[in-house]
Amino acid sequence: MKRRVFFVSDRTGITVQALGQSLLTQFPDTQFSMRTLPFVKNQVAARNAADIIRAAREEDGVAPLVFSTLTDPATQYIIADSNEHVFDLFGTFIEPLEDALGQESSHTAGRMHGMADVTAYERRLTALNFTLSHDDGLSLRDLSESDVVLVGVSRCGKTPTCLYLAMQYSLKASNYPLTEDDFERSRLPPALENCRDKIYGLTIQPEQLSRIRHERRPHGAYSTLAQCRREVSLAETMFRNEKIAFLDTTTVSIEEIAATVVRDRGLR
Amino acid sequence: MKRRVFFVSDRTGITVQALGQSLLTQFPDTQFSMRTLPFVKNQVAARNAADIIRAAREEDGVAPLVFSTLTDPATQYIIADSNEHVFDLFGTFIEPLEDALGQESSHTAGRMHGMADVTAYERRLTALNFTLSHDDGLSLRDLSESDVVLVGVSRCGKTPTCLYLAMQYSLKASNYPLTEDDFERSRLPPALENCRDKIYGLTIQPEQLSRIRHERRPHGAYSTLAQCRREVSLAETMFRNEKIAFLDTTTVSIEEIAATVVRDRGLR
Repeated sequence: MKRRVFFVSDRTGITVQALGQSLLTQFPDTQFSMRTLPFVKNQVAARNAADIIRAAREEDGVAPLVFSTLTDPATQYIIADSNEHVFDLFGTFIEPLEDALGQESSHTAGRMHGMADVTAYERRLTALNFTLSHDDGLSLRDLSESDVVLVGVSRCGKTPTCLYLAMQYSLKASNYPLTEDDFERSRLPPALENCRDKIYGLTIQPEQLSRIRHERRPHGAYSTLAQCRREVSLAETMFRNEKIAFLDTTTVSIEEIAATVVRDRGLR
Repeated sequence: MKRRVFFVSDRTGITVQALGQSLLTQFPDTQFSMRTLPFVKNQVAARNAADIIRAAREEDGVAPLVFSTLTDPATQYIIADSNEHVFDLFGTFIEPLEDALGQESSHTAGRMHGMADVTAYERRLTALNFTLSHDDGLSLRDLSESDVVLVGVSRCGKTPTCLYLAMQYSLKASNYPLTEDDFERSRLPPALENCRDKIYGLTIQPEQLSRIRHERRPHGAYSTLAQCRREVSLAETMFRNEKIAFLDTTTVSIEEIAATVVRDRGLR
């Protein structure tokens, strides 16, 4: 039987889920069945969540694991009272933090809310709109307004990385796909000349590229290994000649590519 | 002087940053200067991070706050040794978890890696590509292949929510913008008839909608308050008539809209 796991949050549950799952991977011999209970914002919602947890325990005959990031102590108390294995990923650190800062915490629930900070919300939407309208070299106009320009061959991971950069970091991320014209010149495309300091290169192993392209367009030269090898080699030569930093995306997740670009380009 | 804060992670740092920032909002009287140190994957990287932390302490004359989610004990030790206020958001829970599960943890570093799980990676890319090609009613073909279809007036938050649903939950999310034709019929558009069970409505306060539209297209009827009021009212009437669940996005973040849709539609 799979051990039941609940992630309880007063917001979306994304953070508690990420941290909880990461902790559980340290126990590879156990199989887990996970469920997220988001928006536990008040005591009514907490009692509902506690009922769900108690029912699972009753049904399984074993206490589930409960991870929570509830910020309101009263709500957290209701969850902690429902089950013996409750890991309070938030409250555990409040007292040590009070000691470190020499002040009491405000004990306020749910202070981090998206729309509360309207400016941040709008910056993010502006970034997303910019990124969508500059995807795949769609618009080369105002490319220099970008915070970062990803350059690489078709299907090497530019688009998802740009979207993630816009969504998570509110960066205006555009991308430019390298094509035959660019390879013939073997120089940086003219459109990119005046945003040289914003360029970051992406590359990928030809075998992986061929596989990805094959799924999209199985016929024609586009997805053949020979063509992928040629394009990747020409792209990497260009990056080296033009002294453009670049990253191999083959075994790297979108989040990691984005975080690397942010770090290497010194973006915030 | 702002109190210096470091977020240390062996991956992107997104999770430690989210949890750390949430903890810090409990101390509204203190101003913080935050920096993320991602990819601390080995002891060399840990010693570099420790040097940065020590330098900050030297410079400020006060110990910074350090939040970490390092999974490798040896690496974590180097960070813990660098400073007196290190909050180990990962290791703190390993022992209680060992107790709860009655087994030892594997003490393996960085088990959660994007590309390690190739299937999950491809599902996510497929979802993103589907979502991009079905944005804004671009393609009504194979709309029924969607996991969820967001419906609402132009600029009510459909596109960013769809992208987030694809990125974070690997869901094929498409969206359909309601237009005059649909309002005249005051019925669900024919294109949506055969995916009725996947539809979720979004609405927004007309004042906010007008402001958002104004930024995009300041002239013409499109962004006037009168027009926004009319469209929102007609859209909500249609949702009610057709018994479509809907959510007001005015004060809700993209993450929260997405998590609500996932919960209400019972997606995974």
